[in-house]
Amino acid sequence: MSKYEHIRLAHGSGGKLSLELIQELFVSTFASKSLTELSDAAIIKNHGGRLAFATDSHSVQPLFFPGGDIGRLAVAGTVNDLAVMGAVPKYLSSSFIIEEGFAMDKLEKIVKSMKATADEAEVEIVTGDTKVVERGKGDGLFINTSGIGFLAANRNISSSQIQIGDVLLTNGSLGDHGIAVMTQRKGFELNLGLESDVRPLNGLISELLANVPDVHFMRDITRGGLAAIANELVIGQNYGIRIFEENIPLKPDVVEYAEMLGIDPLLAANEGKIIVAVKPEAAQKALASLRQHPFGKEAAIIGDVVKKPLGKAVVQTAYGSLRLLEMPIEEQLPRIC
Amino acid sequence: MSKYEHIRLAHGSGGKLSLELIQELFVSTFASKSLTELSDAAIIKNHGGRLAFATDSHSVQPLFFPGGDIGRLAVAGTVNDLAVMGAVPKYLSSSFIIEEGFAMDKLEKIVKSMKATADEAEVEIVTGDTKVVERGKGDGLFINTSGIGFLAANRNISSSQIQIGDVLLTNGSLGDHGIAVMTQRKGFELNLGLESDVRPLNGLISELLANVPDVHFMRDITRGGLAAIANELVIGQNYGIRIFEENIPLKPDVVEYAEMLGIDPLLAANEGKIIVAVKPEAAQKALASLRQHPFGKEAAIIGDVVKKPLGKAVVQTAYGSLRLLEMPIEEQLPRIC
Repeated sequence: MSKYEHIRLAHGSGGKLSLELIQELFVSTFASKSLTELSDAAIIKNHGGRLAFATDSHSVQPLFFPGGDIGRLAVAGTVNDLAVMGAVPKYLSSSFIIEEGFAMDKLEKIVKSMKATADEAEVEIVTGDTKVVERGKGDGLFINTSGIGFLAANRNISSSQIQIGDVLLTNGSLGDHGIAVMTQRKGFELNLGLESDVRPLNGLISELLANVPDVHFMRDITRGGLAAIANELVIGQNYGIRIFEENIPLKPDVVEYAEMLGIDPLLAANEGKIIVAVKPEAAQKALASLRQHPFGKEAAIIGDVVKKPLGKAVVQTAYGSLRLLEMPIEEQLPRIC
Repeated sequence: MSKYEHIRLAHGSGGKLSLELIQELFVSTFASKSLTELSDAAIIKNHGGRLAFATDSHSVQPLFFPGGDIGRLAVAGTVNDLAVMGAVPKYLSSSFIIEEGFAMDKLEKIVKSMKATADEAEVEIVTGDTKVVERGKGDGLFINTSGIGFLAANRNISSSQIQIGDVLLTNGSLGDHGIAVMTQRKGFELNLGLESDVRPLNGLISELLANVPDVHFMRDITRGGLAAIANELVIGQNYGIRIFEENIPLKPDVVEYAEMLGIDPLLAANEGKIIVAVKPEAAQKALASLRQHPFGKEAAIIGDVVKKPLGKAVVQTAYGSLRLLEMPIEEQLPRIC
């Protein structure tokens, strides 16, 4: 089925090869309607209400990085996957694959970080599992979290709601997580306070939905960065996505390190940033709502949904010229989440 | 907190060290009421109904073994965790951690096996995630499945329902999975049709609950075997558990290979067997119900809940003498599920 005979790192990148693997193998085999939507969580029927159901396995290296650790990442990641569907995250599972010889004090620190993040997000970790693999058969620690959220009957946040003219916003600077983890991994000594943005966004999102009830679409901008999401959104659609280059919030340190690392910050992962699509009339209200939350102070309008170029994602420079925002293909940032 | 400074294989065995790690680290830190019950799934409140929520990561080696593969195991395992709580399993997530270089055709085979098992169990795989780790940082493939099941309002299957006098049953021969996987791993050439019992049991369980509505307790007998469950059940309780040695269904091949491998079949994992506790008056009806299902033909009454020895699990031999059924401590069967 695949043109590749073996799994490559890029199959986990969140980019083109990831998407091919997911569509050609998982979606086509499992044949579930909710999988075909490639959303962050499945919406499932339930007695008397609707649920959102999400899962994420985390393999980030290093396990501790500036601004966070794998435990905080695992909880925030699944909370955010539920919240961007418009659900109120409630219950998480946590499942550990631990390599023999892993230091107990590190495990304890990570588990405490999970608990602190769960408390911050007001979710409960209700069930779990632990497996141990022999030395050399893992990489310290992998954590899966799955989660359940409750969804109001009339809530419909989905890429199918996107319309031409919609305004795109984000809640702050892009690329912080990806670049912070990479500088740590490369052992850069110069890191002047650059930190991952890993955090649960359900509070910010619930305020946004209270202020702007008809948000069309949200997604958290993780692996593959803004480039991956923008490209996923336009596939087979009768619209394009235009990003205003000068409006993208970027920290000067992120820009500098990204250049040294040879990575486009628009392809770098975030763990505390979302993209939001609203109708033009609601854009200012959405911006104000995001900015009043501590996790949205640098929120910005970063683009819009356009008629042309159809089926493409483009970046418009300050001078008005357009360049293609390409889908990441080969892995620039393996093990970023 | 732990008396160990590093994680040992036995921390994933389902035995004494697993239990210590779970209680001393995960349960105490996450402080969730449903975790303290150490059940196979959490029961959670929900608009208009109750849900069961379970998670399991699978690291079995080899990935393909007589009678099954990691895909079938991952689906059946979570289905069974939900079903033993009395829930009707409905939705699964699947999350893959794949080692770079893993053969695509093997992955395809495993994914198809997951789909076939999901169809057999009448559950839907609705959401997923894929991560890829570098060569040498994983072990081919790990799969996490989490699942949601619906639970009737009046259903209460829990270790807290167990009463002195309750009769214990199982739906068939014990140790098949553990011994089949170990013979495959050791490269035994003599394997004469010994197969894992991996299968979804929700059909068998729903028939049992229709025939015997007041089942007190169920659990699937996985890692650590009957010995681990029996010992977990008696901790801090005012009762003991007695197993009738001559009643335990054991395949002659399992007994023979277990002896060659130096493993007690009562400590070996099963992936298609449950233990059931019912009041004495319901025992024959429960036995008949199990036996009429294709996955329960060799069902048997294997023990009871006794006043003495209090807080212990014992095996009563054909001659009437008692021996302690000890909790597995060191790892005999790593990576069995």
